[in-house]
Amino acid sequence: MFKEMLEAVRQQRPLIHNITNYVTANDCANLLLACGASPIMADDPEEAAEITALCAGLCINLGTLNHSTVPAMLAAGKRAGELGRPAVLDPVGAGASRLRTETALRLLREVPFTAVRCNLSELKTLAYGSTTAKGVDAGEADRITEENLAHAAALVKDFSRRHRVIAAVTGPIDIVTDGERALCIRNGIPMMSAVTGTGCQLSSLTAAFLAANPGQPLKAAAAAVCAMGLCGETACRRLTGQDGNASFRSYIIDTLYHLTPDGLEKGANYEVL
Amino acid sequence: MFKEMLEAVRQQRPLIHNITNYVTANDCANLLLACGASPIMADDPEEAAEITALCAGLCINLGTLNHSTVPAMLAAGKRAGELGRPAVLDPVGAGASRLRTETALRLLREVPFTAVRCNLSELKTLAYGSTTAKGVDAGEADRITEENLAHAAALVKDFSRRHRVIAAVTGPIDIVTDGERALCIRNGIPMMSAVTGTGCQLSSLTAAFLAANPGQPLKAAAAAVCAMGLCGETACRRLTGQDGNASFRSYIIDTLYHLTPDGLEKGANYEVL
Amino acid sequence: MFKEMLEAVRQQRPLIHNITNYVTANDCANLLLACGASPIMADDPEEAAEITALCAGLCINLGTLNHSTVPAMLAAGKRAGELGRPAVLDPVGAGASRLRTETALRLLREVPFTAVRCNLSELKTLAYGSTTAKGVDAGEADRITEENLAHAAALVKDFSRRHRVIAAVTGPIDIVTDGERALCIRNGIPMMSAVTGTGCQLSSLTAAFLAANPGQPLKAAAAAVCAMGLCGETACRRLTGQDGNASFRSYIIDTLYHLTPDGLEKGANYEVL
Repeated sequence: MFKEMLEAVRQQRPLIHNITNYVTANDCANLLLACGASPIMADDPEEAAEITALCAGLCINLGTLNHSTVPAMLAAGKRAGELGRPAVLDPVGAGASRLRTETALRLLREVPFTAVRCNLSELKTLAYGSTTAKGVDAGEADRITEENLAHAAALVKDFSRRHRVIAAVTGPIDIVTDGERALCIRNGIPMMSAVTGTGCQLSSLTAAFLAANPGQPLKAAAAAVCAMGLCGETACRRLTGQDGNASFRSYIIDTLYHLTPDGLEKGANYEVL
Repeated sequence: MFKEMLEAVRQQRPLIHNITNYVTANDCANLLLACGASPIMADDPEEAAEITALCAGLCINLGTLNHSTVPAMLAAGKRAGELGRPAVLDPVGAGASRLRTETALRLLREVPFTAVRCNLSELKTLAYGSTTAKGVDAGEADRITEENLAHAAALVKDFSRRHRVIAAVTGPIDIVTDGERALCIRNGIPMMSAVTGTGCQLSSLTAAFLAANPGQPLKAAAAAVCAMGLCGETACRRLTGQDGNASFRSYIIDTLYHLTPDGLEKGANYEVL
Repeated sequence: MFKEMLEAVRQQRPLIHNITNYVTANDCANLLLACGASPIMADDPEEAAEITALCAGLCINLGTLNHSTVPAMLAAGKRAGELGRPAVLDPVGAGASRLRTETALRLLREVPFTAVRCNLSELKTLAYGSTTAKGVDAGEADRITEENLAHAAALVKDFSRRHRVIAAVTGPIDIVTDGERALCIRNGIPMMSAVTGTGCQLSSLTAAFLAANPGQPLKAAAAAVCAMGLCGETACRRLTGQDGNASFRSYIIDTLYHLTPDGLEKGANYEVL
């Protein structure tokens, strides 16, 4: 099921416009290159929409938003919508400040996103305006586990339907849904949260998968989520006793570089909810 | 003595607000994660103070300051002061431009910092307005060695008393003082200066140690300085003949990821001056 | 021929001012440190020219230009010209947006650059105003290969003469020329394009080589291009079956850290056109 999704990325090599944070931009770029896509980062309002028009997909990430990049996000997002190109929103830290919450909500209103990729705290902020987030990480109560899976899935599906987006909510367990169908994904390991920006990287990767697989957004987003988690699992097996989160960071990207469509197909660990 | 300092960081997992440069932000984030803390980077004036209020500590780094982030630094620093949260200043390149020198001096006047972490050239600029800095590195004359240690320590203590901050001045030998007591720390190796941002990383780490150890700022700052230097020493032993400064960069963070409180206690190489 | 160029960098340790993008700034800094130079990044218009005046060389990179950094680029570039310091332009993405194209052209008009380092699509945009670029990468038709080498070399030489700059145009084959003499360089491997910012890194490296070798800009620029390509070749031989583009990224910098002047001399693969 997911095999063709990665094949399409490797064949089409989509150019992805990222308006993202300066903390993890390098990793997002190298991860896109690892999957066969090409990155371009451009966040000045004067060029943002023009760059989007060149690209097959767009990823908007609020990690280090500022008064100059927010108008760039809006302009780029609207242009993507006009051109029918897939756009992904990663509302990093929604709930942590009014600027982040309001920017995320405004983007959701004004841009026809294909997908929103976030954690459960951020999703709740967008859905209800309240949150138990801890900075840019999900609050303890918002980690998706076997115990709260059914409840979380209902919430995410409702959000997806209401905003007409694919919602890809990640945590110990991931949920990807188009509002009708929902997949629960169990790829990934806890140590991934010790590497800054694995979520940001996944959002950029999702944009690449969506761009290369038009008309199949649920499958494309789910494939990206499985691929990222699977790379974490595989990279973890490579860790020596001296390797820590910095080497793990590199190994995750290295692993995607070598991931084959068949490897993704076999390693994807999901079920339909 | 330092064991409890690291234990507290690992247990409390303090969230640290970093207003820092885009060159080393990723390393600062991964180093914070390696020690058990959580990073958040946010530098727009509209949200800076609000993010600080969410966090246990603040690190302000002038590495790539600009007209937009300077007001964010001031707002965040003042809020940290109002809330009694520890704030660290890293006056990167003070002395290299008027903007850097004046911003550092203004921050020192207006923000009740808990600690200033810098090299001796930067400290002299803040103390006297003059410098022999070479860009963002200490000038040759300002490297702290056995020869100038007593003189440097007197200068740093004086600065510390005058500004009522912990001063953590690093170089071939490090000095950490609260103005009364001073520690001289001999952890670390020269090759650390071939990795960009080890100073920035230490400043963020200091904020995490201060946040997790309220009421013990001298011990907390000194523990952070020892930990960073010790990670450099340990990481260096892992270098193969092909590894250079880029692999060393990852190994330093990896080493902190595995550093135990007992390991820090045993490896800390300091004396009371 | 190139041996002395690297020796001079290692002996003089030039301080290089980079106004560059936030995606690859960390790699540019670590690469400069690896070759023995020192980096400083500073992009606020208020301090840019002042920082340039402290430095032995300047590198201006349009990777994530914005309305604030463009004036900083102009001010820094003009100051470098007044002081007779070498300045390098890397017109990342010229042709991808009007802002990039116009900024690159304006910089070329107003700043007396010593060298322009770019790909063939970017060069054509600067020369003719048109392009077949794919985002920040050269378009397929603009990859320099044996087939189009003579034609490309003529174009690059013409550009070099017209703008009185060393032109260093990289691709599968690299061309470096002062408008009279031209070198064709065959160091480097395709996998380098799977690491974000190898071009940016080369531009910073070129500034360091120019700064340490005044009066020999063609040799200095060509030595930098050979060094970068050679590091890619050598780093590639170190890759295990699990290593991908992220480990390769570190190995390239590691390799430069260990590159000797003799090693560069022996490994340089070039011919006079």
